[in-house]
Amino acid sequence: MQKLITSDAPLKAAILGASGYSGAELARLLSAHPAVAVEKIFAATHAGERLASLYPRFRGLSSAFFEPYDIVACSDCDVVFLALPSGEAMKIAPELLAAEKKVIDLSGDFRLQNINDYTRFYGRTHTAPDLIGCSIYGVPELSAPSISAAGFIANPGCYPTSIILPLAPLAAEGFLGDAQIVINSLSGVTGAGRKSSAELSFAEVDGSVKAYRVGNHQHIPEIRQELSRYAGGDVTISFTPHLLPVARGIYTTITALPGKKITEESIAEIYQAYYADAPFVRLLGNAIPEMKHVIHTNFIDIGWHISDAANTVTIFSTIDNLLKGAAGQAVQNMNLMFGFDERTGLL
Amino acid sequence: MQKLITSDAPLKAAILGASGYSGAELARLLSAHPAVAVEKIFAATHAGERLASLYPRFRGLSSAFFEPYDIVACSDCDVVFLALPSGEAMKIAPELLAAEKKVIDLSGDFRLQNINDYTRFYGRTHTAPDLIGCSIYGVPELSAPSISAAGFIANPGCYPTSIILPLAPLAAEGFLGDAQIVINSLSGVTGAGRKSSAELSFAEVDGSVKAYRVGNHQHIPEIRQELSRYAGGDVTISFTPHLLPVARGIYTTITALPGKKITEESIAEIYQAYYADAPFVRLLGNAIPEMKHVIHTNFIDIGWHISDAANTVTIFSTIDNLLKGAAGQAVQNMNLMFGFDERTGLL
Amino acid sequence: MQKLITSDAPLKAAILGASGYSGAELARLLSAHPAVAVEKIFAATHAGERLASLYPRFRGLSSAFFEPYDIVACSDCDVVFLALPSGEAMKIAPELLAAEKKVIDLSGDFRLQNINDYTRFYGRTHTAPDLIGCSIYGVPELSAPSISAAGFIANPGCYPTSIILPLAPLAAEGFLGDAQIVINSLSGVTGAGRKSSAELSFAEVDGSVKAYRVGNHQHIPEIRQELSRYAGGDVTISFTPHLLPVARGIYTTITALPGKKITEESIAEIYQAYYADAPFVRLLGNAIPEMKHVIHTNFIDIGWHISDAANTVTIFSTIDNLLKGAAGQAVQNMNLMFGFDERTGLL
Amino acid sequence: MQKLITSDAPLKAAILGASGYSGAELARLLSAHPAVAVEKIFAATHAGERLASLYPRFRGLSSAFFEPYDIVACSDCDVVFLALPSGEAMKIAPELLAAEKKVIDLSGDFRLQNINDYTRFYGRTHTAPDLIGCSIYGVPELSAPSISAAGFIANPGCYPTSIILPLAPLAAEGFLGDAQIVINSLSGVTGAGRKSSAELSFAEVDGSVKAYRVGNHQHIPEIRQELSRYAGGDVTISFTPHLLPVARGIYTTITALPGKKITEESIAEIYQAYYADAPFVRLLGNAIPEMKHVIHTNFIDIGWHISDAANTVTIFSTIDNLLKGAAGQAVQNMNLMFGFDERTGLL
Repeated sequence: MQKLITSDAPLKAAILGASGYSGAELARLLSAHPAVAVEKIFAATHAGERLASLYPRFRGLSSAFFEPYDIVACSDCDVVFLALPSGEAMKIAPELLAAEKKVIDLSGDFRLQNINDYTRFYGRTHTAPDLIGCSIYGVPELSAPSISAAGFIANPGCYPTSIILPLAPLAAEGFLGDAQIVINSLSGVTGAGRKSSAELSFAEVDGSVKAYRVGNHQHIPEIRQELSRYAGGDVTISFTPHLLPVARGIYTTITALPGKKITEESIAEIYQAYYADAPFVRLLGNAIPEMKHVIHTNFIDIGWHISDAANTVTIFSTIDNLLKGAAGQAVQNMNLMFGFDERTGLL
Repeated sequence: MQKLITSDAPLKAAILGASGYSGAELARLLSAHPAVAVEKIFAATHAGERLASLYPRFRGLSSAFFEPYDIVACSDCDVVFLALPSGEAMKIAPELLAAEKKVIDLSGDFRLQNINDYTRFYGRTHTAPDLIGCSIYGVPELSAPSISAAGFIANPGCYPTSIILPLAPLAAEGFLGDAQIVINSLSGVTGAGRKSSAELSFAEVDGSVKAYRVGNHQHIPEIRQELSRYAGGDVTISFTPHLLPVARGIYTTITALPGKKITEESIAEIYQAYYADAPFVRLLGNAIPEMKHVIHTNFIDIGWHISDAANTVTIFSTIDNLLKGAAGQAVQNMNLMFGFDERTGLL
Repeated sequence: MQKLITSDAPLKAAILGASGYSGAELARLLSAHPAVAVEKIFAATHAGERLASLYPRFRGLSSAFFEPYDIVACSDCDVVFLALPSGEAMKIAPELLAAEKKVIDLSGDFRLQNINDYTRFYGRTHTAPDLIGCSIYGVPELSAPSISAAGFIANPGCYPTSIILPLAPLAAEGFLGDAQIVINSLSGVTGAGRKSSAELSFAEVDGSVKAYRVGNHQHIPEIRQELSRYAGGDVTISFTPHLLPVARGIYTTITALPGKKITEESIAEIYQAYYADAPFVRLLGNAIPEMKHVIHTNFIDIGWHISDAANTVTIFSTIDNLLKGAAGQAVQNMNLMFGFDERTGLL
Repeated sequence: MQKLITSDAPLKAAILGASGYSGAELARLLSAHPAVAVEKIFAATHAGERLASLYPRFRGLSSAFFEPYDIVACSDCDVVFLALPSGEAMKIAPELLAAEKKVIDLSGDFRLQNINDYTRFYGRTHTAPDLIGCSIYGVPELSAPSISAAGFIANPGCYPTSIILPLAPLAAEGFLGDAQIVINSLSGVTGAGRKSSAELSFAEVDGSVKAYRVGNHQHIPEIRQELSRYAGGDVTISFTPHLLPVARGIYTTITALPGKKITEESIAEIYQAYYADAPFVRLLGNAIPEMKHVIHTNFIDIGWHISDAANTVTIFSTIDNLLKGAAGQAVQNMNLMFGFDERTGLL
């Protein structure tokens, strides 16, 4: 993580919400990035504390202190990452954008185009409605040109990342018909963020599994919005998230009845066409991914199975929720925005 | 587990395959059953070894030894449990039935009515085809009268138990339409039985999840057969089993597009009609079950969610795969066969 | 857990602190006890809520509600269990004892004879110092006669139970010399009680281990007091507790340099002399116990290894911290106090 | 892991036993090392298979195939790593050394100076006794000059690494007296290597802990040999290894009665004197290490607690058994042997 070689004029970055799990992963990734200097790590609740005190794995690697956020402290920064809870990012993004900082927002505040969806699924009034529509929804493998030109990125949610990457090509090529797409996702506990909760204690989570927020998870409109955009029309989904006794990782199983005949060859061709050059998408063909193979990486592994009998396709994907599902994808977006190789600091 | 009070003329039971996980659970349950004496525990590979040596949790509770199976040794027994791998049970069931023993078979050998399904999904030729159709498929909550009168029970598979109990009432009442039913199940590792396998080692399973046997799991025809029977016509399912980093338990999430309008009230009424008096079915309404609440019990917890927007119903169930999914259900069947209260030895 | 047979005039019991892990285990054990009726379950923070709502594994088994504690509500009760945090029990025990209730206190408030130890290790002033010395320290295998005659039991701590049972016989027989006894214990997370804490979250505990409260754990004076009592003089111990990624269970490894020569034969004889008739002590000889074999039971498994080269004995013990280390032992004590077979409701 | 920049004339390396856990970690580390090219990965049992097939986390990162070992295939190599089981390395090391390859042996075959210890603790006859004494026991922080000059390294065992690093300075400075040192270590399951074993299955390991190989673990003579060397005389230890339900990591707790008075200041000074410049030793003072902070790193974290009452010092250390306890330390040794910065490829 210590850089033996750094560039002469590195990009200067700041992280807001650096005390959370995604924020700390960002601190780790950016500290090791050959072209970046982390100027500031902000955290409201741990201001004055060392990063290495809250996360002792940073001992010997970082002497950074959390500071209370202040826009003046960002004046030198080129890029600011918002690893804040939803509801907090929208309070801060406006002044950063006004100050012409490039902003990568990891919260859900600027992902939805329809403000009613925001109100309903996030349960609060949006305080920066003018900025809705100003962000680019940043899936690097699908929107690289827009991301490269963007100043404001809405970094996708963890579940949506695991779903949009496998489904967008099928949607765009007309294979998602009218039939409902059934999506079951399994997530590790860090997906809930770093928090004190009896429900998330080891004693409660170990040896168990449960579905949660059925029918009202805030990622539902995000998934629907993006898939509908690629399909060129409304897509109907049933999304059921589950909590798993693992620390990190998302495993998604999608069952769909294609709108037109799909074969092993055609689906493989479609994925190849979209992702042959995508360094972080690994296409497994009809092999089945396993969560452990992507943990601590920025990869998404995608496999599939076509059932001729049932006329269905079942698609599997898996990511590390804190990397490809959050901090890793944010760095990948930053790389595109500043003209670096997409992989820099991520392999 | 030690019986302080036992009946004067207990039922005499034998267990074949008592060294496996389900067999050992049977030994535990039957040893504690107030009306049963475990006469023999048979295990080919551990003959001569003590149960308490292979499973030290039995120390101080059982002094039983595994013996090699021999039909003569069963001559005193009233009931014989086959906790054998599929393919083994069909070699032994015929002579036990010929000797007029009551037989409860926990393997998959006598569950399928269609021998072609057996050949295809179990990958072997059935050696006792004459007995196919002679067994009662034993879901106690659905077939108590037949079970009470039966001499030969095909004890349901673990996944099918978690699926048939929630779906049979909907099938029978005409709510499963033509649309495909999407079933995702998550299973603990004991579902694979007690075996040496690098793939099942803690180092490989912990912190991971994977789907497996997609499209060719041997429980697919069993689920289809039973649901079609209740529906009175072919039912189309997509079943995807996943391996989870937990020792015990199955969690099943079912997404269906009902064939006719279903409401919170109507689904609750249907379940009440079928299961109000079923001591091991706990109906949670629109609460979501959690696996931990059924582990080490014979309960199945069932919850559901109706989405008016998507016109779908999502149903959740969870069981302990070794109890309601195997040994517990076998004892429940035995209770019915011999006229005991269904709950005896199981609460 | 439902009682098919209950006695005509059952013992009436109340539990204070029934919403915690030990309290809920007590509720489970006492509900299934053939001679006990649970009259009241008290819990300050969950009053008005159902036991089965906080712990859904009780659904279908218990319809009890938590109530706010009130001594009047205890007027019918024969025995009251205090499953309260240390510091709370001493506020309530005096009035219960004054009302001539039998009291079994699972907290640490009445275990220490030396009030200075209490002040120092519990960090507070004792508010019922007159009652110190009035309780019986209740290890059933070591003090059955006193327990049978007692009205007030200090139920031992979880770590001390795992340590005193293996060491008391050696202490009493003069085998613990002057040399320091090194005790390393590993505990599951429920040992910390049911609480909201980022430190105890699955994400923080899984895949890790740490020692904690080194040199100042509140069980240190309890262990020292009891061992010194059996040894008839001061015993020097080094006790290091560790937190383990398991939900339940304690594993203790003790290394001692005996004060006089000990052999495989002599140690086995001593343990036999003390525990041959103890139904919950399983002596493994020079086999090594494993935690899983005692989980969900009231057993303690004890094994040992004598190293002639190093002149040391290493002793291993393992218990379920919520059963033999708390609620199970409390019920065992109750059985002795009321003249039941020690095993009643525990096997 | 893909190298964006590689040196012009990289060091050529081969790995024997690359299909095991340590071997695969070596493949990962060396593939990412800026000055190394992995020429060959040998594995007897998986020859012909891709590394990325056995370990799918390598998909997209490595196209290497396992080959059967052949010394001719090593002719271009500068350094050969033996990640073989003990007993296998001694068959192959002689011809590699004869061919003037630098050899880093991760097995236990060349760590012990006393051949009787080898015979007794490894249970076999050494087949290359002439080479005993020719290897350097490679703890980089303690023997850098010898390692830099060496052609043959015996890479330390995982448990010994976690014990020797904290104890060697105390031994060398005369603080380990005659009293026995009590060492309790807890290890993750990968310590047992990649193998098929019912005992190591998730179902058996999860939720449990056990001590094992008490009194006869093969690391006992290794620990004793090295500590005695630093102490300048025989050191008496009691070492008890335990198996933990975690995949990776070792946690070691050492309790010692110092031979002369030790204080917080003096112990801190000693460790500073030895390790102030050691990049992979993190001294925590009287803070307690946690296993999770070193997992997936080459660090060892060391903390300690001095009890004036008991006159003892308790020392805690933790490492990743596959990195600082195996492959990471091997690369660190390679760096020293070839004149690279010790940290290269490890941070």
